[in-house]
Amino acid sequence: MSEIKYTYFDAKAAGEAIRLLMKYGCIDFIDNRISFEDWPKVKSTMPYRQVPILEIDGKMAHQSTAIARYFAKRVKLVGNNAWEDMEIDAVVDTINDFTSKIQACFYEQDAAVKESRKGPLFEDTIPFYIGKFEELAKNNNGYLALGKLTWADFCFVGIVDYLNKLTETNLIADCPNLKKVIENVTSIPSIKAWTIVRPKTDL
Amino acid sequence: MSEIKYTYFDAKAAGEAIRLLMKYGCIDFIDNRISFEDWPKVKSTMPYRQVPILEIDGKMAHQSTAIARYFAKRVKLVGNNAWEDMEIDAVVDTINDFTSKIQACFYEQDAAVKESRKGPLFEDTIPFYIGKFEELAKNNNGYLALGKLTWADFCFVGIVDYLNKLTETNLIADCPNLKKVIENVTSIPSIKAWTIVRPKTDL
Repeated sequence: MSEIKYTYFDAKAAGEAIRLLMKYGCIDFIDNRISFEDWPKVKSTMPYRQVPILEIDGKMAHQSTAIARYFAKRVKLVGNNAWEDMEIDAVVDTINDFTSKIQACFYEQDAAVKESRKGPLFEDTIPFYIGKFEELAKNNNGYLALGKLTWADFCFVGIVDYLNKLTETNLIADCPNLKKVIENVTSIPSIKAWTIVRPKTDL
Repeated sequence: MSEIKYTYFDAKAAGEAIRLLMKYGCIDFIDNRISFEDWPKVKSTMPYRQVPILEIDGKMAHQSTAIARYFAKRVKLVGNNAWEDMEIDAVVDTINDFTSKIQACFYEQDAAVKESRKGPLFEDTIPFYIGKFEELAKNNNGYLALGKLTWADFCFVGIVDYLNKLTETNLIADCPNLKKVIENVTSIPSIKAWTIVRPKTDL
């Protein structure tokens, strides 16, 4: 068996979907967590100044979505053909777009600019995207693509707590179908076990 | 034969890689171009307020990278296994990160904020990323991944003119290996023919 070392922040955020996919497939991994305090001195040692990083048998990979898709293939949560794969990929990229728009507001250093972005974010961007995701979940019977469990659901479930924390809201409070997406992922025994034992983190 | 309708701006930008991939595979498509003047009234009719949009046999898809990957599979410019696919995906996502960082500066509406971003962008971000891409191109013999032609090369070639235009520089002026990447793609007969006949656009 190859040893898998997975390096990310001591956080869920953009790195948890990959942990969930490995847990789903009962793939053992070293859960290497970097504290936010250590990050400034570690950052320059990362090949692209970013985490996550995946290491298997001396080979290294980076980019969260690329790594998630790799494990999705290994655990068979992808589509049955190129078109189906594209449908999943489009949902994942839209989750990433939504995340970027929230981050662009809350990680803005200029206080006045940050404040000015909150209006459009809360009045337009968030309702628009959450409405789209809720519609997808409704049309796909509690999943986000193909009417069945795919790695897009893991990407959503992996990031939603972090997005709630950043926005200090419950983004899916009024979304019964997105709640089903979360239930459909977190009720899987290996995922449920992980959510109990995983380190409790702020983000 | 299925009719393919591809809708994007009348621009290369984030949509040209897909056109190049279709041209590479001699896949006919309706090249539906939206002018920037028309965009404000068309935007709300797009499923996610974005282009590109792909339509085949009444089915619709969105998200530029997802669509590019779909055609990459059709024209066989992907990897031979999940790890190789991840290597390509990581390069593509890094090109997208680089593009986003440039856009975050040049599309900033607040003039003072925009100006303040130019320093870090030109002194750090651009040299860092271009250095990384040049290193990849060197290590992969004039390609960006796997030491051979993949759709990552098409993504780079598709976007570089647009990034040069935004930054008003020639990003690869001092990069002999990235020039080889461009040569390796644009010298393919079907691509060369397309670059001659395609509409001349500002972006």
